[in-house]
Amino acid sequence: MVAIDILKFGTSSPADTTPIQKLIKAGYEVQDIIAVIGKTEGNGCVNDFSRTLAQTVWGPLIPEDAITIFSGGTEGVLSPHVSFVVRSRHDKPTGLVASVGHTRDIDPWELGTATHAKTVAETLSSMIGDLNIQPSDVQLVLVKCPLLTSSKIESSKAAGKQALTSDTYKSMALSRYASALGIASALGELAEKEIESSLQSGDAWSARASCSSGAELEDNHIFILASDLDANSGRLRAISKPMADAIDAAVVLDLLSRVRQERGEVVQIFAKAEADPRGLIRGTRHTMNTDSDIQSTRHARAAVGGLLAGLTGDTQIYVSGGAEGQGAPGGGSLCVVYRCSEQA
Amino acid sequence: MVAIDILKFGTSSPADTTPIQKLIKAGYEVQDIIAVIGKTEGNGCVNDFSRTLAQTVWGPLIPEDAITIFSGGTEGVLSPHVSFVVRSRHDKPTGLVASVGHTRDIDPWELGTATHAKTVAETLSSMIGDLNIQPSDVQLVLVKCPLLTSSKIESSKAAGKQALTSDTYKSMALSRYASALGIASALGELAEKEIESSLQSGDAWSARASCSSGAELEDNHIFILASDLDANSGRLRAISKPMADAIDAAVVLDLLSRVRQERGEVVQIFAKAEADPRGLIRGTRHTMNTDSDIQSTRHARAAVGGLLAGLTGDTQIYVSGGAEGQGAPGGGSLCVVYRCSEQA
Amino acid sequence: MVAIDILKFGTSSPADTTPIQKLIKAGYEVQDIIAVIGKTEGNGCVNDFSRTLAQTVWGPLIPEDAITIFSGGTEGVLSPHVSFVVRSRHDKPTGLVASVGHTRDIDPWELGTATHAKTVAETLSSMIGDLNIQPSDVQLVLVKCPLLTSSKIESSKAAGKQALTSDTYKSMALSRYASALGIASALGELAEKEIESSLQSGDAWSARASCSSGAELEDNHIFILASDLDANSGRLRAISKPMADAIDAAVVLDLLSRVRQERGEVVQIFAKAEADPRGLIRGTRHTMNTDSDIQSTRHARAAVGGLLAGLTGDTQIYVSGGAEGQGAPGGGSLCVVYRCSEQA
Amino acid sequence: MVAIDILKFGTSSPADTTPIQKLIKAGYEVQDIIAVIGKTEGNGCVNDFSRTLAQTVWGPLIPEDAITIFSGGTEGVLSPHVSFVVRSRHDKPTGLVASVGHTRDIDPWELGTATHAKTVAETLSSMIGDLNIQPSDVQLVLVKCPLLTSSKIESSKAAGKQALTSDTYKSMALSRYASALGIASALGELAEKEIESSLQSGDAWSARASCSSGAELEDNHIFILASDLDANSGRLRAISKPMADAIDAAVVLDLLSRVRQERGEVVQIFAKAEADPRGLIRGTRHTMNTDSDIQSTRHARAAVGGLLAGLTGDTQIYVSGGAEGQGAPGGGSLCVVYRCSEQA
Repeated sequence: MVAIDILKFGTSSPADTTPIQKLIKAGYEVQDIIAVIGKTEGNGCVNDFSRTLAQTVWGPLIPEDAITIFSGGTEGVLSPHVSFVVRSRHDKPTGLVASVGHTRDIDPWELGTATHAKTVAETLSSMIGDLNIQPSDVQLVLVKCPLLTSSKIESSKAAGKQALTSDTYKSMALSRYASALGIASALGELAEKEIESSLQSGDAWSARASCSSGAELEDNHIFILASDLDANSGRLRAISKPMADAIDAAVVLDLLSRVRQERGEVVQIFAKAEADPRGLIRGTRHTMNTDSDIQSTRHARAAVGGLLAGLTGDTQIYVSGGAEGQGAPGGGSLCVVYRCSEQA
Repeated sequence: MVAIDILKFGTSSPADTTPIQKLIKAGYEVQDIIAVIGKTEGNGCVNDFSRTLAQTVWGPLIPEDAITIFSGGTEGVLSPHVSFVVRSRHDKPTGLVASVGHTRDIDPWELGTATHAKTVAETLSSMIGDLNIQPSDVQLVLVKCPLLTSSKIESSKAAGKQALTSDTYKSMALSRYASALGIASALGELAEKEIESSLQSGDAWSARASCSSGAELEDNHIFILASDLDANSGRLRAISKPMADAIDAAVVLDLLSRVRQERGEVVQIFAKAEADPRGLIRGTRHTMNTDSDIQSTRHARAAVGGLLAGLTGDTQIYVSGGAEGQGAPGGGSLCVVYRCSEQA
Repeated sequence: MVAIDILKFGTSSPADTTPIQKLIKAGYEVQDIIAVIGKTEGNGCVNDFSRTLAQTVWGPLIPEDAITIFSGGTEGVLSPHVSFVVRSRHDKPTGLVASVGHTRDIDPWELGTATHAKTVAETLSSMIGDLNIQPSDVQLVLVKCPLLTSSKIESSKAAGKQALTSDTYKSMALSRYASALGIASALGELAEKEIESSLQSGDAWSARASCSSGAELEDNHIFILASDLDANSGRLRAISKPMADAIDAAVVLDLLSRVRQERGEVVQIFAKAEADPRGLIRGTRHTMNTDSDIQSTRHARAAVGGLLAGLTGDTQIYVSGGAEGQGAPGGGSLCVVYRCSEQA
Repeated sequence: MVAIDILKFGTSSPADTTPIQKLIKAGYEVQDIIAVIGKTEGNGCVNDFSRTLAQTVWGPLIPEDAITIFSGGTEGVLSPHVSFVVRSRHDKPTGLVASVGHTRDIDPWELGTATHAKTVAETLSSMIGDLNIQPSDVQLVLVKCPLLTSSKIESSKAAGKQALTSDTYKSMALSRYASALGIASALGELAEKEIESSLQSGDAWSARASCSSGAELEDNHIFILASDLDANSGRLRAISKPMADAIDAAVVLDLLSRVRQERGEVVQIFAKAEADPRGLIRGTRHTMNTDSDIQSTRHARAAVGGLLAGLTGDTQIYVSGGAEGQGAPGGGSLCVVYRCSEQA
């Protein structure tokens, strides 16, 4: 059980590692870092090398057992940044605990399958056990998962195996969905035996999953954020509730009003966004799925990012595109981390 | 002085003219149409043929003195639609009046210059005079203005003239800015003699201007929407106040709360959006101006559209990109049209 | 049997119909038009409204039984233009004959299936019969085929049917491939009973097919171009041979050398282009399938267009993207129409 | 005077440094490396982080005085790769010599100005002097030059200086043009006193310049490739002649026929490509400058790359976009490096 704090800093480019100096200035040491969770300014799709660049420059700087989760795409008003999840000073309880882990590497032909989902579920369950918390305490599970590239698809063929798709962009969605089912299973939102059928139906989801795929890894990076309210002395809180659709301001305002009730201050927002696959939002047509110039994930991040940044006044928020299985279709999971007022 | 009503319908494509049947079903006739103001699903930039297509199919259907204003770009959650501005039944006062007009054709080498601005100002002033209202009654001036194409730039050269730019995308911004200065001048927000210097400084603006450029016209189409509160009997209202930046939810919420105070129902939102030219929003970096894959106007529409659609629950709203001179830099004009409750 | 001529003119925009005046100036009448085959400057993908615009303005101008085939996308050096296929004056033999036809409308759930392929094959076979030629005389079959939009996918569901894909961009490829198999079947390049299995394997192809999908139609437009060498008196010729890959200059140079041998002059080139689905060209990696900013069809048109325009010195050529089943994987069909020298 | 060899290897991603192992396998050592010149698969524009990634991974691997020049953009058939320029074994003459250098950092407000051009010219002249060759021996000068980002533009303002443009994409063109004028001046193609006026007129050019801008550097990296034919014993050759326009196959075929005359084998092609700024190629319209979805530099690379790859059968060639001042407008410099047959 690791009590944690979260600190957030803007970056001037995906290669900018100066936030580490600000972290140190804030009184932490490099070995306190558990995870670096960032938004980089690429397209968030297959050929987003801003993520790889960030991972390349951050990897050597952080402890070996820390993980990085870089999500590409800061469309619209979103601002590139990194959030450090660090061990709290003297391991003093903060109200939040966290844990990080890795699955084994996923073979190209496993990507998006039940094997992929179950691999995530197993690792996650074991992490939850180690944290000594209940699945219901978990407010957010971030997974960074792999994708297929042209060369991985060919290597599958060479191995006599068939990857699920030969469309590299589509592989990102398949990877996110399998990871989300794994999360749903580990959190008790979905029975393990329903993973197979849910992969077919496409309509199962976790309310607390946030998955993001990238070319810069072969395994899955997993990050758990959970409430630790017994501890009582800390002031950090996380609350989550999925947006029902991409314009669900009501849910956002509800969570923010709970923050205000505790005279709290928002530390970070973790949101998922997607273009409703049915082509409609509350009955009216959207055009994200028929725009062949801009991928729908980019549209969705821009729109949901605009809403969330407007309502919080903060543009350095974690809005990730592609919400397959992470909230209901067309919606997305939403987690608000905040700091209560000392008086609350 | 023409009392008007506004009716809004979704479109299934830029070529969809079936809304005219819905207008007729709602009790209006084609000859009641004063203006068709729509959002089409192109890129909203130079080669946006969705606008031209809409104009091509709508032109022959509406009265000769009616105008069309199609703004391209329904990024994110925005939904393609048309708003009909129609003469109210039996010319009964509604609380709103409107007027439409055209300037003369703008020569390619005039585009974006003081001549362009003054041409807009003159036509607009004369339209305001004809409407028999005060500039302060005007809540919104929509201008559809021309842009430069490669062939217009070459024809300028052939005529021994120099167009302001050879960058076709940039010509859209220059055209919008000159048009906005013309509006500011006619509305008394800018002295006519300051037009020249404002073209240089780039920092003058109108709070009620909304300009949109397109390849489908050579002149400027002008639409005025004004309050007519003496009439008193009508229930339509328009209120406007510019957003200070792209995440200015406060202004939106303020206008919406005024609507609620009158137990009103939003009929339409007219908003302008732009990427702050300084690369910052409230001090943090945005990446809209350095994304070479997506034009900044597309980013800005998606983000501001997400905020406005979230707060109103309506995705069929008029959010137009490129707010040069239409609200402060990085912000944009905003006008809410609503219908008061009968009891209000 | 209709002897034809081909005349080609540049367009200043997708809405430019002035070429019809040039056709008349060249001595033809509107009723001589059999087909208008053009390249328009959209993205050539799902939301390419330049095609719809072209069809909207050209439709009312041409004879009712004439067809239009607009292929979107003039990437790189390619130049927007239209080619008129017209009845030769006094029906004098020219060396080439042509025919046009339509299939019935394809239901959304039929798109890309064996039913789609067989519908194309039947109509085409019947057209070949009517032309009184042998399948081996056919040098080129152009098919303009439909695609799926979000609303068609939903309407399928409403009808209790399942469209082949919910990915609108992918539906374009499925539609082209089924159409190509239909052509292969009608030309005797593929046994009808192999259509089903070829839809699975994805590796059958016709050497003379050129298919292009668009949102502007529900049926398939078919155009046949065939040699009529018995006639002997004419000077028009068409020769075809597929490019084996996207850099197959050898085939192009071979066809052009045959033109030169007859002291001929190229009238028009009809080529198909695609990104090799295996991600490799002659063993080295290409990045067209992993670029999430530009669709692979746009890349392929630009590259093959650059090669063909360079070798012919002509940029007003018909290069169409998406060569599924139209030439071997990674390659594409190629047809050169030329006019022999009078002395040849 | 450094006799050099050139070896070329494909890369599997911008982060792929395995080619260094192939270099070693081919008998060279890391300290032999003078320059790494590569094509990476980004957009080649402002936010191309594939270049930065390549530089980040290659920088630590190569000798301190070696330079990297990564040009972004492998549109169409182009294949990502790196070329090593290495000292020949035992400094044995090869027929080619090379030299690398850096200018001082260019301040944001100097970028694109005469100061920028003269800084390049001075460094280049001094490098030519050191090489002990004549300017006419130089076959190719590659310059990697900086660009403006939003933050550099703001830092200029903060320093009370005015950058030439606030358009980051445009800054790339200004930087390339100034660099090209510097090259033209140092090679004696342009009088130094004409630099100022040429910056205005935009029509001066060098036949042997190839400039590419990127966000990953502040100075200019310069690479010179020159003939050393006195040496006589070597078999490497470089010949150059600019393409007059983007479809100038004649020049390409001419250079390749000279290679064939010496029974040579092409080692590498260095080409520049651009969309003709006048919007026309040989009198017909192109649409690269009015496509707001794809930057014109991407179009131009794809098209010229298609032509060159077709004619050489090689897709691992260096085709760089943005040819301002590097060949006549609409054309681009072209240099073919080849190895003569031993018998020649």
